[in-house]
Order: sequence, then structure tokens, then C-alpha cells
Amino acid sequence: MKQASIKVFAPATIANLACGFDTLGLAINGPGDEIIGYLTNKPGVQIEEITGGKDLPHDPTKNTAGIAAQAFLDAHGDPSIGVSMRIHKKMPNGSGLGSSAASAVAGCLLLNELLRRPFEKRQLLPFAMQGESYASKAYHADNVAPCLLGGIQLIRDNATLDVQRIFPPRGIFMAVVYPNIKMLTSEARAILKPEITLQQHIAQSANLASLIVALHNSDFPLMRRCLVDQIIEPQRSHLIPEFSKIQAMALEQGAIGCSISGAGPSIFALCSNSLIAEEIGERMKAIYKDVKIRSTVYISPINNEGAQLL
Amino acid sequence: MKQASIKVFAPATIANLACGFDTLGLAINGPGDEIIGYLTNKPGVQIEEITGGKDLPHDPTKNTAGIAAQAFLDAHGDPSIGVSMRIHKKMPNGSGLGSSAASAVAGCLLLNELLRRPFEKRQLLPFAMQGESYASKAYHADNVAPCLLGGIQLIRDNATLDVQRIFPPRGIFMAVVYPNIKMLTSEARAILKPEITLQQHIAQSANLASLIVALHNSDFPLMRRCLVDQIIEPQRSHLIPEFSKIQAMALEQGAIGCSISGAGPSIFALCSNSLIAEEIGERMKAIYKDVKIRSTVYISPINNEGAQLL
Repeated sequence: MKQASIKVFAPATIANLACGFDTLGLAINGPGDEIIGYLTNKPGVQIEEITGGKDLPHDPTKNTAGIAAQAFLDAHGDPSIGVSMRIHKKMPNGSGLGSSAASAVAGCLLLNELLRRPFEKRQLLPFAMQGESYASKAYHADNVAPCLLGGIQLIRDNATLDVQRIFPPRGIFMAVVYPNIKMLTSEARAILKPEITLQQHIAQSANLASLIVALHNSDFPLMRRCLVDQIIEPQRSHLIPEFSKIQAMALEQGAIGCSISGAGPSIFALCSNSLIAEEIGERMKAIYKDVKIRSTVYISPINNEGAQLL
Repeated sequence: MKQASIKVFAPATIANLACGFDTLGLAINGPGDEIIGYLTNKPGVQIEEITGGKDLPHDPTKNTAGIAAQAFLDAHGDPSIGVSMRIHKKMPNGSGLGSSAASAVAGCLLLNELLRRPFEKRQLLPFAMQGESYASKAYHADNVAPCLLGGIQLIRDNATLDVQRIFPPRGIFMAVVYPNIKMLTSEARAILKPEITLQQHIAQSANLASLIVALHNSDFPLMRRCLVDQIIEPQRSHLIPEFSKIQAMALEQGAIGCSISGAGPSIFALCSNSLIAEEIGERMKAIYKDVKIRSTVYISPINNEGAQLL
């Protein structure tokens, strides 16, 4: 007997946010992963279909959604449960927008909803992390946590998934551009020097801590002073065409901050309202058009819900 | 004509607070610098007397209080103003409790009060910084800012004195022990390695940012997880006798965190109430008594006023 299908959605996310490498991330509206699925009598996870993504494996043991779903089933403990899923990627993968996290989150959220929520949403984090870590070769919650839980999430510790929600002022809009070039997270990680100076640490951590204060206090000028990346951006930005030009334009147009989204190549601009974000989005697209690079622009408020049943 | 004397007080401070090296500091009650002074007809700064401190120079160009007072006079601009001061140090210097910052703050605050506040309190920061930087050979506001302004202060940037006040939950008490051993801030700084790993940075900055969240939310368990120093304490703690024993005792007795105060040798324990702080203070003293080291213990809430006219 074929059970009723349900549909879940997990949003794209922007990790790092300039001064919060591996510790900060936020969710946006629009791009993300949709998974439609139903329970079956065949134990385990099956992936029927994947649309919209490039080179993503249908083998559930090699697909982040499949791995996260299997982690859920292992924890749930009933060996008779089976799930079949169709994955519709409504976002680019390899873009620095948390594509693998979105798949992983959607994969385990689907099962939680199909089974009438045996777990609280936050309890899904470790399952999603298993999927994410398979894809990104690293155990980082800075995409998974905001994707699942929404808003801005501060990751204190990945091992224990000690994650704090930060409440930003209303009205913040993101302008995000994805230039259609190939770039792998694992490569972007590999170029990072394993050491930094103590002075870099002091400056960057003071910016991160002050950003938390600025978000709490709706202090936009302070936010702008904090949204600087002295450590990662200088090492990675040369991998992204026109990065400096876009960053300069965004700040000139009034963005509060502009830096690399996750490992790139996407670039985000954090803005105090939608008009500034729209204007910056137009100009981002134009800059890439001038150099004949196809790009996609997303304009979005912060997504405060995170992944959800549609 | 001798003018009326006034008396100002600048409190001792605890910088670093485990995860906030060079960025966090708080003021306590009790120990600190008292300066009594009056305006004179002899332009410039004179130091009549210093009591309570060891080896502190009476030459105002070599004394942090004198330098800060002179910086005030230079900014104030009236070349006819003179001030005479008697400095009563009611705290040990070279203790890691911000002794030089207290002198510097008291020095310029004295003049501001004598002249009926031509500057706002916060505007005194750069004058105090000049005194402090002479003594500590570094331009850091992590003692000066909480000493002047009170509470917990987060230093985003020393060059621009971009300083944010953090509002902690009520009821926090500090137990602080100063073991009477010789240790110079400049030496304690010199042993620090100029580089750290990226992983150390990620962990420490996540702790610092999460500590801000914990303080905002009165989340004591989170505060405890954050009050860890993976970078500086392991390099410095061997300079402080019985450090590990005291830290273990304090955490065992319920301290939220325990680490080195500033560059040491003082050790602080941050506690959720005065009873725990008192108990830890007794035991700190006993541990040093066992090894024949004289020590002084201070038990204090966070000082929310900062330096003030008495």
C-alpha cells in the first residue's frame, strides 16, 4: 500500500558571515531543497529521483539526504520502516549556500514528519550533521543549524552541537549572488593556512563578539564595523571572480557588510532593508554580466522558520 | 591660594576573563587607586606622595597617573592649569588586577572632576590609555575601559577605542586571589607565541561570542561552557604557583569559571552568588597558606559604576 506523500523544504544558508568562520550561519528564503516522500514497506532509504542538482548520487549511502535519513532511522530503531524520496534541488550545489546541509536537513525532516514527529526539531541536528559531514568532509553545523532551525545560529561547539540562536533586528535583507563557476568546498578549505597570528585572532574574535552585541542592540553602525573578515576572506577571495569589485560596490551602496558566503563562490551583502538589497542585487548581476559570467541573484530576508513541512 | 581637595577612586579590574584575551574586562569593588588632589597655580602635574605601591615613580612623566593627567591637560588646552596629587594605592601593583589602569583612570578623572567635568566620562578613555600604555608597553583598553566605565566591557578595537558594555545577570560575584609573587605583565606577554592554530581561533572565538549570549540571557550553564581559555592560559598558568589546584577547586566548588586575571599572577573565579565566592575565597587562601605563599583575597560583585568621585 502506497502511503500519502508529504513535502518538506530546507532553505539555503549563508555561513561564516565575515567574522564568524565555522561558527555563524543564517538561513534565507527562496532557494533550498524540496523533498517529497512517503513511507514504504521496504526497509531503508530509497531515492527515486533527483532534479535540479548536478552530479548528485542516487545511492542513498552516498547522498547527504539519504545518509541523514538513514541516521534518523538508525536512531528511531524500528527496522521495518522504509522511506522513498524524490529530491528537487531548487538551489545550486557547490555554491557556498549550504546545498548539502539543505539536503541533509530535508532528508531527516521528511522522516520526522512522516512519522508524526517522534523527535523534536532540534534533535534532528545530529542526523543532518551526518549527511552534511559526508558531503563536506568536515563536521560543521554552521549551515545545518540555521537550515534546520532558522534565523542566525551561533555554533559554540560542533562536537556537542552547542548552538545558540541570535535574534537579529527586523528588516535585515540579504542580497546574494551565485556566479556560475565551479568551486569545491573541500578545495576552498584546503587552501586555508592552518595557523593565524594571535593579533588576527584578537581582532576577529572581538569583531565576532561585538557583532553579537550589535545584533542584540540593533546597532547597525557597530554591525558594519564588525562584519569584516581578516582571516579567511584574504585567503579565499582570489578564487572568486570580481569579488573585490562586488564587495566595494555593495559597501558603497550601503550594505552593512559583504563577504564570501560559506566557502564561496557565492557572495552575500547584508543590508538594513529590501531596497538596498534589491539595488545591490541588480548591480551584482550587472558586474558578472560585464565579464560574461552567468549568475543568479537571491534577495531575501532572514528565514526565521528554518526547514519545514510544506 | 590652595584650592579645595577632592578624592577620586578607580577600581581594580579583571581582564581577559578566560576566553576574551585583550578584549574583555570587568571592574570589581574594593581594591583600587584613590587619588586626592587639588588645582594649583603651577602649570602641569605634580605628584606629592604615593602610598601603598611598590617602586612607583614620583616623576609625573613616568607615572601612569601623571601621564594620564598630562594627556588630559594637553587636550583641555589651558596651559595655566596645574594639579597636585597624592596617590594612595589600595591594591597591589604587578598583580594582574589592572593597577596601572586604575592609576591612569584616577589621574585623568581627578582633573575632570576638579574642572567640573569639561569632558564626558567616556571621553577620558584616550587619556587613561596613554598612561596605561606607558606602564604596560601595550595599547590595550581591557583594563582601562571597565575601570573607567564599570561593568563588563568588550573592546572591539583599541585604536578607535570602540568599546561595548555588556550587561551581566545580577548577583555575579568574583573571588579573586593575589599570590604575593613577583611577575611582570611585559614578561607574561613575552612568553606568548605569536601564532595560534585556526582551530584554536574557531573554538576560542565561538566561546567568546557565546559568552556574550550567555551574559545577555543569564544562561549560567552556557557561561560555564564558554569560560575556557585554550590559548593563553596553557602558556601562562605554569608561571602561577598552584594554579591548577586552585582552578580545579573553584570549579569543584561551583564557580562558573576560573582563570588567570589579566597577565596574572592573580586568579579569579566567577561565581553565581556571594556564598560560593566566599567559600572559594577561603579555600584559595588556604591553598596558598599550605605552600607558604602570602596571598590576598578579594570577594566582590561586579562594580557597575567604574571610577568615581568620592
